[in-house]
Parts: sequence; C-alpha cells; structure tokens
Amino acid sequence: MPSTIYDVTTWTIPGSPSVTAFTDIGAIVNSIIADIKANQPSQASKPGAVIYVPPGDYSLKTRIVIDISYLQIKGSGHGFTSSSIRYNAGSTAGWWEIWPGGSRIKVENTDGNAEAILINRGGSPRLSSIELVDFCLDGLSFTPNQNSYLNGKIGIRSTSDTDSLRIVGMGLVYLERGVVITGADALQLNGNFIAECGNCIELVSSGQASMVNDNLVGAGPAGFSIFAEGHFGLIVSGNNVFPRGKSSVHLKNCTNNTVSANRFHAFSSGMVTLEGACHNNLIGTNHFLRNKETFGPFVSVPLTTDDLFGLVHLNGSGNTVVGNHFSYDVPSGDIKPAGATPTLVLVKSGGNNYVATNHHAANVAVRAAVLDGSTTDTKVLDCGTAAEFQALGSATYGFRATP
Amino acid sequence: MPSTIYDVTTWTIPGSPSVTAFTDIGAIVNSIIADIKANQPSQASKPGAVIYVPPGDYSLKTRIVIDISYLQIKGSGHGFTSSSIRYNAGSTAGWWEIWPGGSRIKVENTDGNAEAILINRGGSPRLSSIELVDFCLDGLSFTPNQNSYLNGKIGIRSTSDTDSLRIVGMGLVYLERGVVITGADALQLNGNFIAECGNCIELVSSGQASMVNDNLVGAGPAGFSIFAEGHFGLIVSGNNVFPRGKSSVHLKNCTNNTVSANRFHAFSSGMVTLEGACHNNLIGTNHFLRNKETFGPFVSVPLTTDDLFGLVHLNGSGNTVVGNHFSYDVPSGDIKPAGATPTLVLVKSGGNNYVATNHHAANVAVRAAVLDGSTTDTKVLDCGTAAEFQALGSATYGFRATP
Amino acid sequence: MPSTIYDVTTWTIPGSPSVTAFTDIGAIVNSIIADIKANQPSQASKPGAVIYVPPGDYSLKTRIVIDISYLQIKGSGHGFTSSSIRYNAGSTAGWWEIWPGGSRIKVENTDGNAEAILINRGGSPRLSSIELVDFCLDGLSFTPNQNSYLNGKIGIRSTSDTDSLRIVGMGLVYLERGVVITGADALQLNGNFIAECGNCIELVSSGQASMVNDNLVGAGPAGFSIFAEGHFGLIVSGNNVFPRGKSSVHLKNCTNNTVSANRFHAFSSGMVTLEGACHNNLIGTNHFLRNKETFGPFVSVPLTTDDLFGLVHLNGSGNTVVGNHFSYDVPSGDIKPAGATPTLVLVKSGGNNYVATNHHAANVAVRAAVLDGSTTDTKVLDCGTAAEFQALGSATYGFRATP
Repeated sequence: MPSTIYDVTTWTIPGSPSVTAFTDIGAIVNSIIADIKANQPSQASKPGAVIYVPPGDYSLKTRIVIDISYLQIKGSGHGFTSSSIRYNAGSTAGWWEIWPGGSRIKVENTDGNAEAILINRGGSPRLSSIELVDFCLDGLSFTPNQNSYLNGKIGIRSTSDTDSLRIVGMGLVYLERGVVITGADALQLNGNFIAECGNCIELVSSGQASMVNDNLVGAGPAGFSIFAEGHFGLIVSGNNVFPRGKSSVHLKNCTNNTVSANRFHAFSSGMVTLEGACHNNLIGTNHFLRNKETFGPFVSVPLTTDDLFGLVHLNGSGNTVVGNHFSYDVPSGDIKPAGATPTLVLVKSGGNNYVATNHHAANVAVRAAVLDGSTTDTKVLDCGTAAEFQALGSATYGFRATP
Repeated sequence: MPSTIYDVTTWTIPGSPSVTAFTDIGAIVNSIIADIKANQPSQASKPGAVIYVPPGDYSLKTRIVIDISYLQIKGSGHGFTSSSIRYNAGSTAGWWEIWPGGSRIKVENTDGNAEAILINRGGSPRLSSIELVDFCLDGLSFTPNQNSYLNGKIGIRSTSDTDSLRIVGMGLVYLERGVVITGADALQLNGNFIAECGNCIELVSSGQASMVNDNLVGAGPAGFSIFAEGHFGLIVSGNNVFPRGKSSVHLKNCTNNTVSANRFHAFSSGMVTLEGACHNNLIGTNHFLRNKETFGPFVSVPLTTDDLFGLVHLNGSGNTVVGNHFSYDVPSGDIKPAGATPTLVLVKSGGNNYVATNHHAANVAVRAAVLDGSTTDTKVLDCGTAAEFQALGSATYGFRATP
Repeated sequence: MPSTIYDVTTWTIPGSPSVTAFTDIGAIVNSIIADIKANQPSQASKPGAVIYVPPGDYSLKTRIVIDISYLQIKGSGHGFTSSSIRYNAGSTAGWWEIWPGGSRIKVENTDGNAEAILINRGGSPRLSSIELVDFCLDGLSFTPNQNSYLNGKIGIRSTSDTDSLRIVGMGLVYLERGVVITGADALQLNGNFIAECGNCIELVSSGQASMVNDNLVGAGPAGFSIFAEGHFGLIVSGNNVFPRGKSSVHLKNCTNNTVSANRFHAFSSGMVTLEGACHNNLIGTNHFLRNKETFGPFVSVPLTTDDLFGLVHLNGSGNTVVGNHFSYDVPSGDIKPAGATPTLVLVKSGGNNYVATNHHAANVAVRAAVLDGSTTDTKVLDCGTAAEFQALGSATYGFRATP
C-alpha cells in the first residue's frame, strides 16, 4: 500500500519539479492531495493521510483546497509572535528575529483567492475529521497600514458542512479573518492561539454540538474574537480572550449554547453580545474585565458601542447569566455618553432572562443590570443594590438587591 | 541502544512474515510489545516505546494486550465519522466514502475476545503512563441491526489499576462499549470524540483524581455517555455530551467529584444521575437541554425513565447543584406519565443537598425541584416560583422562590 | 535548506563524538540549538526547529539553555509514575519497573546549575512560541530523604519575558521546583502531569493573559501547586490539584484573574490563598475537599496554617467567590487550634468582596465565612446559617442566611 505519510519538503509536483514547499506550499499540498486521491480510489477505504510541515518559512501562493476527509496537516510549532508589537516598535534592526515562526505558512496568495486553506466538498457525506494541528498561518501585514487589520486574507475557511473537524494547537496571526467555518457539526477548536486577526473565529450560517475550548484569542479593534451564528449546542469554555475592541463572544440567532469559565478582557462594551433571536443560552462563571485601551496605535480608535450597551448585551429569552465577575475600570471622562452610568448587563429584549449572583468591582457607579422597557419577567438577583438596577418603561421583573 | 520507535506498517512478526498491520494489527502490536520487553530487560530502565499507526485501514483480528508501562500508541487522525447516519441513509453508492478513517483500526476480533485493546498487568507497580493518542477504533457494525448499539465489542479496556493513563484525541465509533477503565488513578481522558457507542466512557469499580475534560461524547439510546463508579476526585469539565438517550453523566457510589462547565443534550430524563451513595459532589455551571428525539431510527425507542425522574437525579447527601441552565422542550403529549409536570432536579434521598441559582426555560410547566419525602434539610434557592417547587411527604427543607 | 528536524539520539556534537543523548542530553540539545542558529543566520527567517526525544532514559548533566524562539522539544511519552509510592514501598525487588519512563530526562546536573531547562534571552523581542511537549523531567530523588521534596533541582525555568510559551503534555516528578516562569505573556500550560515536586508551577514576578488548564498537579507538603505573582488575566480552569499540603492555588499581588471549574483536594487550609494586594479575582464553581493526610510519610508533617486560616483565604478587594462546593472532613481532635470552629472562607482584608451560593458538607460545625474586623462591605449570601457566619470587630457587611 502506498505511504500515507507526506512531507511538504520532499514532495515534488509531477511535471513541475521547480515548485517547492518554500516557493508555494499551496501547490505542493494540493498535489499531495491529488496523490492521496489517486492512491485511495476505492469508496470502501479512504483513510486519508498526514501531511507534515516541518518548522520552516513556507510561501503560500496557491490556495490549499481540502476536499477529502481524514486529512491531517501537522506542523511542529504554532509559531505565534506579536506582529502588532513589532510593527509599532520603531526600528527592529537589532531584533533577534522579526517574524512569526515554527511551521509557518506565509499567506501570500497570488491566485486571486482570499483563503490560505479552503475546505469544501459537495455531495455526501460531509467532510469528516480533517485535522489541522500545530502550525502557523501568518498573514504577514495589513494594508493600508499595519494597524488596520485589513488585508483580505483568510486563514482557514470551510464553506460546506463538516463533521468532527479538528483545529488544535494552531497559531494564526495578521489575517483579516482567521477561521471561518460554515455548518460545523462537532467541531473541536481547542488550544489554539488566534490573535491579531481582524476577526479570529467565525462560525457562520449554522452549526451544532461544537466546542471552542482553551484557546488564546484576541481580535482587532473592529472584529469578532469568537462569533457564532445559528449555532446550537456550542460550548465556549476555558478560553482567554483579549480583543483590542468589540466583543469577546458574539452569538447571533443562537439557541441553547453555553459560555462558561472563560476569561474576557476588552476595551469596549458588548463583551458578550447575544444578537437577534438568542434563546436559552448560559453565560456562567466568566471573568469580565473592561478597561481602557492603552496601546498607542489603538487608543484613538472610536468604539462602536457606548457604555450603555452593556458588557453583556442580551437579546432573546430564557438566557441565564450567573456567577460571573465584572471588573469595570474606565476613567469617568472616557465614558460614553458623557455622564452616563455604565451598564454591566443589558437585557435588551425578550422574557424569562435570569441574571443572578454576578458581582462587580468598578471605579465608577455602574448599573449591574438594566432592563429594556420591552422585556418581561426578567430576574435580577443579588447583583447589586437597588440603585445599581434599572428597569425601563414597562419592563416586568423580579429584583432582589444584595443585602 | 535499540530503537524505541516502531511503525506498524514496517514491522514483521518473527516467524510470521505474512502477517501485516493490514491483516492483523493486533498481532503486530503484540509482537512489537514483546520486542520492547526483550530490549528492556533491566528493571532499572524500562522507558517503553512509541508505536506509530500511520493513516490507513487496519484489521484487528487479535486483541492488543498492553502489559508494559510507558507505551504510547499514536496515530495521525481520530477519523470519526457518523456511521449511524450512513447506515440509515439508504443508498450510499454515490458517497465519496462510507467508513471512518484516519489511523483506523477495524475491530474485527477473531480471537474470541471482546476488546480491541486490553490493558492489564498483575504485580507492582500499577501500569503507568500508557498513552493512546489520535487514532480511531471502529467497531464497524452493530447486530442484529445497525441501530441496536450491540456487537459485543469493546474499544479500550483496563482491568487492573493504572496510574496516569492518558487517552487523548482518539475517535471511537460503533463499539458496544468504548472505554472501560477499572481502578484509574489520575487518568486523563481529554479531547476525544467518542460517540455512537453503546456506552462511551465507563470508569468502573473505583478510581481517584481523574479527569474527563473537553470531549465530544454521545452514547446510544440505552447506554452511558460518561459513567463513573466508586470514584473520588473526578473532574468532568468542558465536555459536549449528546447521547441518543439516557444519561450524560452517571455517578454511582461516588463522593467528592465535580461536574462543571459542560454542555449536555439528551432525549431523556436522568441527564446527570447520582445513584446510590453519592455524597458531596458538585454539579455547577452546566447547560442542560432535554428535548425530543427526532432521528427516525430512535424515535420509537422507549425511554427507561419518565419525566418525574429529574433531568438531575440525586441520591446521597451534601451535593451541590448550582448555576446550571435547564432547557426543557418536550411536546406535552409526549410527557410520561401523561399529564405529569416534569421534574428538573429530583432530590431522591439524603440530606444537606443544595440546589441554587439554576434557571430554566421550558415549553410546559415544570417543577424546578422536587424533594422526596425521605429527604432532609435540602436547600432550594432562587430556582423558580413556589408553584415550581414540590416537597413530598415529610421532607425538610429551606426554600426561597425567585421574587 | 538544512533540515529543521533533529533527533537527540542521532546527533553528534562536533568535536565531541563520545557524548550521546544517553550520557548528556543537555549537551546534545545545546549543540543542536547552536546548529539551528548557525543555519538560520538571517533575521528575516528564523522559524526554529523541532528536537525529538524518542522514548528512552537520558541523563542530563548539562543544563539546556533555550535562547531561540520557535523551538519545539517533543517526546513520545510524559512518563509519570509515582516515585513517592515507590520510595516508601519497602522492597521493590519484585517490581516490574521502578522509575518513571517515556521520553525521560534524568535531571542529574553536574554543571553547577539547578535547572534542567533554562529559557532566557536578553534584547528584543521576547522569546516566542517555545514549545515543550510530551516528555518527562525526572528529578530522581530527594535529599536528605525521599520525602523531603528537596534536591535543589528545577525542571523548567524561564528568567526573561516570553510570549506564547507552550508547555503541554509534560510529566514532571521529583523536582524541588517543577516549572518556574518569569514574565509570561499568553503562556499556555495545559494537559500536564506535574506532581511530587516541592513546588509544581510558579509564575513569578509578573505576567498576563496566561492559561493553566486541564493539568494534574500535586505539590509536596510544604510547597505550591499553582502559584502566581503579579499576574493579570490568568485563567486557571479544569485542573485536578491534589497537593500533600498547603495551597492548591496561591495568588500573590494578583488582580483580575480567574480560578474556575477546578477540583482541589488538600490536607491543609489555605487551599486557595490570595496574598497581598489581590483584587477583582473570581473563584467560581470549584470543588474543594479538605481532609486529613493519611499517607504514612506525611502524616506527621506539621501544617503551617491552622483551621482558622480558611480553605479560601482572601486578601484584597472586589473578589468574587461564588458557586463553589466545600467538603470538610477532619477529625475534631485534629483541628487546630484545638476546639476551634474551622473556617471555609476567610475574608482577611479589603472591601467589596462577594461570597455567595457556596455550599458545604462538613463532619464538624464550621464557619462558612468569617470576616476580619478590618474588612468592609463584604457580601455573604446563601452560604449557610447565621451561626455559620462570623463578622469580627467592626467589619461591615451584608449577610443573608440560607433559609
């Protein structure tokens, strides 16, 4: 039986001996995938293969297209380093090194495509058990300037349904969009370092029974760190999320998901945002810190939500926000609108939402919970004093102040 | 010094050159283990070895018996795909592939044994630091029909005490029993995909200080997803558990364990069951969803517990159920007994149990907590209205309704 | 391009052909690092390399010094076994094996240094993305006796700032200090087994946005299991921590960190200690068990804190202790001071601390919370009866007994 073990540095494309992994790792990987297919023609036995990417700097000129199940691409180093610090550091002539490293794929598409890696296949079944492990996708630079978080590049994108996709131990940096997955079922996205990307993790369209655990994540000032749309049964747990702005976790039209035991740090309200029809989600035992951006390049980036938006912003019904800690530390002069009392949890719509035993430590007076006038039957228990609670208009609720 | 690195595809059994990993990976691995032992005769230096399983389809005819410490068996792909969907899909003639893959061991024992992998050794010390990593154990089919979850096959079984056993990144599918471990100490069972098995994870007899984190797990309609017996100090955290029926986590005679920050989805009551003498366990910050089975083959499977059994069913004393979310969405006509008010948390026995700040969203009236008449000194706080609470017989308790 | 893949068993030090990985793996690794540097002279391309350590017993006589980014050292087995049990077992003549194993580095420095692995580099940038994966650091023995937890040996020490350091799947045993990291940023220390060390994990001086998840950890009777100093944004989640004594998690001058969804078991008070200026930390949904040491060698080790110290000992303001379970099971005759009522949560200083919905199960009368006379505005809610609460001196507080 032909080998199922490939090394990008030793593969030669039939008919194109001059292309190497160093000149175009995308073309190399696509050629390997073609070889895997040729060697596994029988429907009854298609176990896939592993493609190894040793530590090195590899240019990707051609998008990798994964259209087979059970392919593992594995490196020996996630290679993250902060490019943001470097680009803002002034002269780096004396630096030991200036780029990310490890098994590092430089995303330099010249093929007109945005993605470094595209996962897509029509027909049945869904692609299963593709694994991307312990390598680096480096978008290299942003345009027009290094703090724009814009370059049109996408690290990993899946545009057809997948089962049991696994993305673990990866490093993604300086991509406009890090990971964009459509129709995930039982995705496992664990233990990655995805930061300094416009958006980091986007689970779009729909998905179910997936897992985003134990990652280090931090998007740019305008993007999403962890975004999920139309998801059901997603667990987001054990992550350390530190965006330059906007949300840490943003759920859109998502029911029955859980966001627990995470650490969130942001420079904006909307740290956990539930947009649209978001029902029956749990936000429990998370640590929230909202303070002020102090990193020069981003200090003057305008925030897109004000301090009345809520660190947690809830739309929908039946959600549970319990056992969280909120730290709020923003100079009073920076609060927007000026003179406003910042909101920690805003229940913007819906009924039967439950907000209990969340504690806060703040440098200014805050509202622990604010209920929109449209909301019904919210419970706010033991989250602060009566003065720290506000029910607008005709909101109905049960409230108990901390004694 | 002889190599400690083995590859199943290149090993030849002395005297049996015709056997290959493709014809019987069990015989190959056992022969390798014999070689490891022969090469490490000194009590003072037995570091074990690594056996690599490249991606491929390997028949296992002979049970693997691991009786040495520090053996790592490692593949390059957990290879999970849903066999349940495939077997119920009608014609799959047009499918790209039909089987699981990756580093896939087809469990086809012809040796009269049930197990693909047996871990066992007498004497001292306990087997230590065996690692099973990133390969697939595929039970292939169930009998008499593909939805029976019965075939007598066991993926991984340990029948003697172990220390620091590690099972990570594995894929197990279509086995009657996935993982069955006796006497685990400091087991680490993390990041696996164990589903479509009769039972998925069974920690039997006794054990301590173990960890079951970050797994995707879903047993068949009659089985256990995560079961532990006589355990002490077990942590079950960050898992996404989606059985076809029965319990997500079942503890039997277990004291001082913790089940936290998980996502549970089931089609039956008893999602977390504490059976027998279960004391001082924590069930905190978990998301529970109970709804109705809609997958055709299992719609008519009768449930073994009714809706009065509780989504959480507690026996024993001193347990803590706090900060959980319960979603209950079952058509009223399907509730058993007919006309009953479903129970979310049933305190069936014991004293000093604590049920607080759990919230629910339900499509019918439910009881947030029900206390058996035998129970004493239960606390039920902020879990619902007075009408949603029921204390039977001579139960003693402290209750506080949500305001 | 030269290979970036090294194997310690095949490397020869130029000019020193007699040194092997078995005689001094430290010298071998340092020689490999020198080779990596020689092969990557260009500032613009320093992706580092991977050094593979196959299973085996390797003596380390010379300290490894890592001063390049993107170096991965990877084994095939964390190799933990209990040396403590073995050293206290009497005759082990009949044992199958007596030492740890896997990819095992025997820490036997003859170079005058304490560390097996030192990470250090001056200048810019910080060292990034060094990865230590799946091997064993074995300190071999303690002196003057095997239960002293003293031998002056350190497993992994970083003395300069690092970015995205990753320590995963390691086994550390019988070291006086396991891991000692200065100035960590986005450290990921996940899935390790670090036990039977004097101290296990020490994050000293300062650090931010780091992660200690899913580890099995247990220090000796006098040491720290997980210690952090001057840290900000640390998440400690999903761990199973079982020291012989002292603290499970000790934070010193740490603000805005989170300790959630862990399991802690100790034989002493101070299981989670917040020392000094510790503000705005979350301690949520953890399971605490405090009972009495029963392992012969440590039964008579005197405890350094008494039962009034608190299982959770808080200094600082704005901390949140919510949704935890406390089991306390110490014979009344062993409680210190004699006749004292043990304290579960001691708020020793500060204001605006919040202690809510923690439940306990105890074999003796306990105080669920005690407030030092200096403390202000503490909230203690639903943690026990009025008799189980004590506010000393002029403490100000809000208290609500469980009904």
